[in-house]
Amino acid sequence: MKIGDLQYQSIWLDSNDDTSVCVIDQRLLPFELKIVSITSVEETFRAISNMTLRGAPLIGAAGAFGMYLATLEITSRTRIKEHLENAARYLISSRPTAVNLEWAVGRQLKFLTGLDSKKELIEKSRKLALEITEKEIDNCKLIGEQGLTLIEELSKLKAGETVNILTHCNAGWLACVDYGTATAPIYMAHDKGIKVHVWVDETRPRNQGARLTAYELGSHGVPHTLITDNAGGHLMQRGEVDMVIVGSDRTTAQGDVANKIGTYLKALAARDNNIPFYAALPCSSIDRSISDGLKEIVVEERDEKEVTHIEGAYNDQVIKVRLAPEGTRASNYGFDITPARLIKGIITEKGIIDASVKGISSLFTDK
Amino acid sequence: MKIGDLQYQSIWLDSNDDTSVCVIDQRLLPFELKIVSITSVEETFRAISNMTLRGAPLIGAAGAFGMYLATLEITSRTRIKEHLENAARYLISSRPTAVNLEWAVGRQLKFLTGLDSKKELIEKSRKLALEITEKEIDNCKLIGEQGLTLIEELSKLKAGETVNILTHCNAGWLACVDYGTATAPIYMAHDKGIKVHVWVDETRPRNQGARLTAYELGSHGVPHTLITDNAGGHLMQRGEVDMVIVGSDRTTAQGDVANKIGTYLKALAARDNNIPFYAALPCSSIDRSISDGLKEIVVEERDEKEVTHIEGAYNDQVIKVRLAPEGTRASNYGFDITPARLIKGIITEKGIIDASVKGISSLFTDK
Repeated sequence: MKIGDLQYQSIWLDSNDDTSVCVIDQRLLPFELKIVSITSVEETFRAISNMTLRGAPLIGAAGAFGMYLATLEITSRTRIKEHLENAARYLISSRPTAVNLEWAVGRQLKFLTGLDSKKELIEKSRKLALEITEKEIDNCKLIGEQGLTLIEELSKLKAGETVNILTHCNAGWLACVDYGTATAPIYMAHDKGIKVHVWVDETRPRNQGARLTAYELGSHGVPHTLITDNAGGHLMQRGEVDMVIVGSDRTTAQGDVANKIGTYLKALAARDNNIPFYAALPCSSIDRSISDGLKEIVVEERDEKEVTHIEGAYNDQVIKVRLAPEGTRASNYGFDITPARLIKGIITEKGIIDASVKGISSLFTDK
Repeated sequence: MKIGDLQYQSIWLDSNDDTSVCVIDQRLLPFELKIVSITSVEETFRAISNMTLRGAPLIGAAGAFGMYLATLEITSRTRIKEHLENAARYLISSRPTAVNLEWAVGRQLKFLTGLDSKKELIEKSRKLALEITEKEIDNCKLIGEQGLTLIEELSKLKAGETVNILTHCNAGWLACVDYGTATAPIYMAHDKGIKVHVWVDETRPRNQGARLTAYELGSHGVPHTLITDNAGGHLMQRGEVDMVIVGSDRTTAQGDVANKIGTYLKALAARDNNIPFYAALPCSSIDRSISDGLKEIVVEERDEKEVTHIEGAYNDQVIKVRLAPEGTRASNYGFDITPARLIKGIITEKGIIDASVKGISSLFTDK
């Protein structure tokens, strides 16, 4: 999508040096647009764990490129099988909740198993990384087209008046490779001339909504208003939200959705006010090996300083200020689980399905 | 309550100069403890509207003192009735949602009506302001004693293990005159040796939880953990919350509770997880003239910069940083309404009642 006059993706191979993977350092947005080169497995791990990169589909793509970078590290003395397995394990450990990462890295590992020529390993893994990346873009486009039908319906119901959509965190193109998941239907509706307006949850503690979603939507010209995470319920009570669309980091076989902490609260408010709540996600983020999200998903705990401190712009500098009394302890879970019962539907590249065992299974019948 | 070794209230008459009302500038906490003198109606208005003072009961007390300061402004040419009525109207307009303010100012106005001696007006209004202040302290003590029984029950049920209480915003002694409303039962339980631990919602946009509740609880030695406003639902799903207690700015005849934006979301999560949700409030904050909170309470909208910017400490300075892309528009409603159906009970100085017409009426039968 566009930033200024330039068209960007969130990850790409350097056109001058294809041993270098380029990404936007998302920790600096919206204050600075900085492109970072990643040239090793170690750097890939760091970029994922320190959140230079974030967003489930993007992390998946990065994992795939990480395996490509692993093949570049092969020397004559490398035990290839062990090397690739170690790289895969290491990469997956950088963000345990992101199922796309495990999926993309696993796909590379399987694809490369048995090969022993460095040249062939490099070529094959590069090809697959690019294929996974392209596939992510295609998936987001398809998700957008599916979700667009829902917005069109609402627009019709409102006789063309603005459709107000609430979203949490950033499930935009920055989180994916392009288009985004939750935002794809919004971009498509907007581009089609349908009046849409987005309520952007700021999404504490890391404020991906205030920093990234507001940045993306603003760059693309989509009308939006920033709100605190506390405000959504009130807006729903007042009839100012027509629909909620969020992304997902991991979705279970029964349709429970793990997403950024706070998503569950918005789903509760949506149900209480009879507002449709959708999760938009590629099938690659569905983990059919687990069913009960609440019992089976391990939610990562992050640094408490993300809660006691916050980063912002001050006189052209980006600095971190302390928000609480010195020495205050904080708890910082990264995700929560929205049970399937609160979800009106799941928007995937293969169609919009019920958040249920039946709905999820229907996505995989052709396999 | 204590700050360091000194015992404080949130408002008091200067012991050396009783034409001066002292308050703690709550905008600077927890970074700086600064006492401010208020000596006019104008300064009272400003202190309330710019949130030097906040919290429904404290605002009520400040309004009462504001009327006392109005009597000090009387000159030989003052039309007393008009002067006092104007002062009352002006003071009430400083914070429209706070019913205590209207109540306390109205009580003064009624009490002073018909008097025409400046000396008598000063004496009477001072006496009533002090009486209202003392009464607020007594009410908080009584609320604490009532709420304590609930914590004791939970503690028994948990065989003496820590009772985890979640609270939103600051309904502590800083919001009142002493003890607090939501915090009074917690302080009393803690002082009695009952193991309690408080989950403190940071409460964006103004972060009264991170700044004030964490400060208060820390100063008194009550174990607590700061969390983002997004986290409460997840903690409830995990069984880490035994009870929710919040304050209220205005409660209706049917038991709907207006409180800091985001309260409603926690009430929804409490219901979904079968956790008791209580509002603790003095009867003075009940507005029996309205019934349906959602339809009848006007929720104030505040400056959007409270959302796009935040204040914090940086190298011993308190500064404001920008959180969103430049030019981002934000919406900033101050309160939301928690419908009575989500509230397990209302803790008042007269007892714990159902959030219902019957429950609320029972508080006023002796009138």
